[in-house]
Amino acid sequence: MNSVNKGAGENSYATNSLVQRKIISLTNPAIEKAIMQILNSTSGPIKKIEIVDLGCSSGPNALEVIWEIVNAIHTSSCIINRPSPTELMLYINDLFTNDFNNIFASLPSFHQKLRQQKENNEFGSNYFVSAVPGTFYGRLFPIKTLHFVYSSSSLHWLSQVPRDLKDERGRWLNKGKLYISKSSPKCVLKAYSQQFQNDFSQFIEARSEEMVDGGRMVLSLMGRDSMDPTSAYCCYQWELLAQALMTMVSEGLVEEEKVDSFNAPYYAPCVEELKIVIEKEGSFMVDSHEAYEIDWDDGTELLSENVLETVSSGERVAKTVRAVVESMLKYHFGSHIIDELFQRYAKLVEDYLSKTRTKYINLVISLVKQQ
Amino acid sequence: MNSVNKGAGENSYATNSLVQRKIISLTNPAIEKAIMQILNSTSGPIKKIEIVDLGCSSGPNALEVIWEIVNAIHTSSCIINRPSPTELMLYINDLFTNDFNNIFASLPSFHQKLRQQKENNEFGSNYFVSAVPGTFYGRLFPIKTLHFVYSSSSLHWLSQVPRDLKDERGRWLNKGKLYISKSSPKCVLKAYSQQFQNDFSQFIEARSEEMVDGGRMVLSLMGRDSMDPTSAYCCYQWELLAQALMTMVSEGLVEEEKVDSFNAPYYAPCVEELKIVIEKEGSFMVDSHEAYEIDWDDGTELLSENVLETVSSGERVAKTVRAVVESMLKYHFGSHIIDELFQRYAKLVEDYLSKTRTKYINLVISLVKQQ
Repeated sequence: MNSVNKGAGENSYATNSLVQRKIISLTNPAIEKAIMQILNSTSGPIKKIEIVDLGCSSGPNALEVIWEIVNAIHTSSCIINRPSPTELMLYINDLFTNDFNNIFASLPSFHQKLRQQKENNEFGSNYFVSAVPGTFYGRLFPIKTLHFVYSSSSLHWLSQVPRDLKDERGRWLNKGKLYISKSSPKCVLKAYSQQFQNDFSQFIEARSEEMVDGGRMVLSLMGRDSMDPTSAYCCYQWELLAQALMTMVSEGLVEEEKVDSFNAPYYAPCVEELKIVIEKEGSFMVDSHEAYEIDWDDGTELLSENVLETVSSGERVAKTVRAVVESMLKYHFGSHIIDELFQRYAKLVEDYLSKTRTKYINLVISLVKQQ
Repeated sequence: MNSVNKGAGENSYATNSLVQRKIISLTNPAIEKAIMQILNSTSGPIKKIEIVDLGCSSGPNALEVIWEIVNAIHTSSCIINRPSPTELMLYINDLFTNDFNNIFASLPSFHQKLRQQKENNEFGSNYFVSAVPGTFYGRLFPIKTLHFVYSSSSLHWLSQVPRDLKDERGRWLNKGKLYISKSSPKCVLKAYSQQFQNDFSQFIEARSEEMVDGGRMVLSLMGRDSMDPTSAYCCYQWELLAQALMTMVSEGLVEEEKVDSFNAPYYAPCVEELKIVIEKEGSFMVDSHEAYEIDWDDGTELLSENVLETVSSGERVAKTVRAVVESMLKYHFGSHIIDELFQRYAKLVEDYLSKTRTKYINLVISLVKQQ
C-alpha cells in the first residue's frame, strides 16, 4: 500500500489529484444506483446508514466522495418521497500514515456545507464524521455495520511488493523495470497476479463480515480491459518511469541494482480477476461493472487556462504520478534523485503522448452483499 | 477550547504532559468501577461495547486512556468470570486542529500491544479504533451509541472566552489579568461561571442523547474544592503568568492593552457547579466524586534523574503550561514574546513554589445514565 505526498505544496497529492477526482466523478452513477437500492430495500424510513470511503487519501478529494454519497442519499430520498435517514455515519479510512490532519482542517467548512444543504431542503439527517485509520486488507469495523462501502483509486495498491521476484540464486527477475513490462518473465506476471488475488481476497473477506445483508459496494480502481497484463494501457506509465531511471543509470546517477530491486506494489487487474475472487468468497453478487478510458492528464478541464498554458501535458502527468509514488521512490532511491527523475519523466511522457493515445483504464464494479 | 502544541519537539505537548498523565492515573479506580458496573448490568455476555475518550489530545497520553479502559474490561471480565465483549469500539475525540497524525503514527504499536495482550490471556475482543474530530460541546455520535464516556484535562477549557468582559463603554473589566483573580470585579467571576455552565450544559445534553441507558461517564477536570473561585489553588498559575506579562509591559515589550484584552477560555469549577448542571438536565445520576491535590510539577517521578537535575521545578512547570497555552498566547500576543515570557514565568514559578505549597485541584466525577 502507499502513502501520497502530504500537505498542500507544489508536489503534494492535494495539489496534484485531478485525475483521481475525474475518476471519482465517473462513479457517481454507480453511487446513485447503489444508494437508491439501499433506500428501496426496506419499506419504512431508515434510521441509520453507515458509509465508508476506503482509501480516502488527503486533499480536496478526501471529502468529495462522502459529499457525493450524502447528496445521493438526499436526492434519492426525494425521488422516492421518503424522509432521509435520521442519522448518517460517515467514515473515512486510509493508512495510519495518511495526512488526516489535512482532512480534519477542512471538516468545519464541510460541516457548514452539510448544514446549508440541510436548511435548503426538507430532507435533513444528522451527520457524524469519523476517521478509521488502518489497512483495508484487514478488518476495520464490527460485524454487520456498514450499509455502503466505496473505494476509488486505492485497490490497485498491493499490501506489499509481490514475493518471488528473485530466482533461486537470489537474482532479481524484473531487471530494469518497476512493474510488469513486455519483457518481464512469466513468473513476474504470475507473482503480481497472485499478490493481487491474495490482497483482494482479504479485502472481500473483511467487508463480507463488516457489511449488513443487502449492503452495497462500489469499487473503482486502475485496471485493464484486455487479458494481457503487459498491455500499454495498464503499465506504460511505469515503463516510462523505468526508462527515465535507466537514463540516470547510464549516466552513473543511479545504481542499476537499485532499479532491478525496485518493484512497485501495484497491480492493474482485469475484471475477470476481480470476479474470480468475488465468486470464490461467495457472499457478494456482481451487480454491474464498467471500464472507463482515462487520459493520462485527465481532469485538466478543472484547471485555469493560465495553468494550462504554462505547464506542459508531460509535466502535469509527471506531477500527478510524483504526488502518488514519491514516498516509495524516496525510500528506495533516496530523495536526491527525485527532482531530476521527474524532469526526465515529464519529457518522456510529453514525447510519448505526442505519438500515441495510450490511456489508463479505470474499472468500476458494483457489488451487493447477499442475504 | 484549546489546541496543545503539536509534534514531538522540546515545547510540544507530547514531551510536556506528565501532569496530565498523572491525572489520568488518578482516574483508574473510577474507570475500573464504571467498567465493572457496565459488565454487571446484563446477565449474559456483551457483544459490543462502545467507548470514547473526549479531548484525547496528542502525544503519549492520547492512547493511554483507551489502553487503561481496555485493560479494565479484560480484568473485570476475568474477575466476574465472563467472556469479554466480542467487539470493542474505541473512539478518540479532540478538536479538528488536534494532531491526530501524531496519534495515528503510534497506532500500529498500540495494536501490537493489544494483540499481545489478547494472546496472553483467554479474554479476547476484536478492537476497532477510530477518531471523531469535533467539539464535545455538541453532538459527535448517533443516539444511544456509547456505553462508556471518559474525559480528562479537557472540560476546564471553555468553548469560548466569556462574553461580558467589557463594561458598557467598551473598557476591559479584568485589567492586567488573564483569568479570575482576587482583584477581578464580581461581574468577571459571574461571566466565567455562566460560560462554564452553558458549556457544561451542552456537554451533558449531547452525551445524554449519545449514551445508552445505564451507560457510565468518568469526567476529570481542573477545579477547586472551595466555593471561592479566586482561591490560589484554582487560579494562581494564571496569576503568575499575568505577572510575567506585566513585567514585560513595564519594560515596553508588551502593550498593556494586549494584557487587558486577553482572557483565558478556562474555568476551574467546584463540584457543586457540576451538580447543578447535571441535576437540571436530569438524565444522569452522580455515582461518586473526588477532589485530588496535584503538585504543579507532578508526574516528575516518571522523569530520569538526569532531567530532574538539569531542569528546575519552575522550568518544568513553565514547559507544561507553555505546551498547553502557547497557541492561544501566540495568536493574541504574537510569537515573538513567547520564549521571553516563559523564561520569566519559570523564574516566578520557581520563586513562588519555594515559599508556598499551592497545588492544582483535579475533580473526578462518575455519572450513570439513568434508564
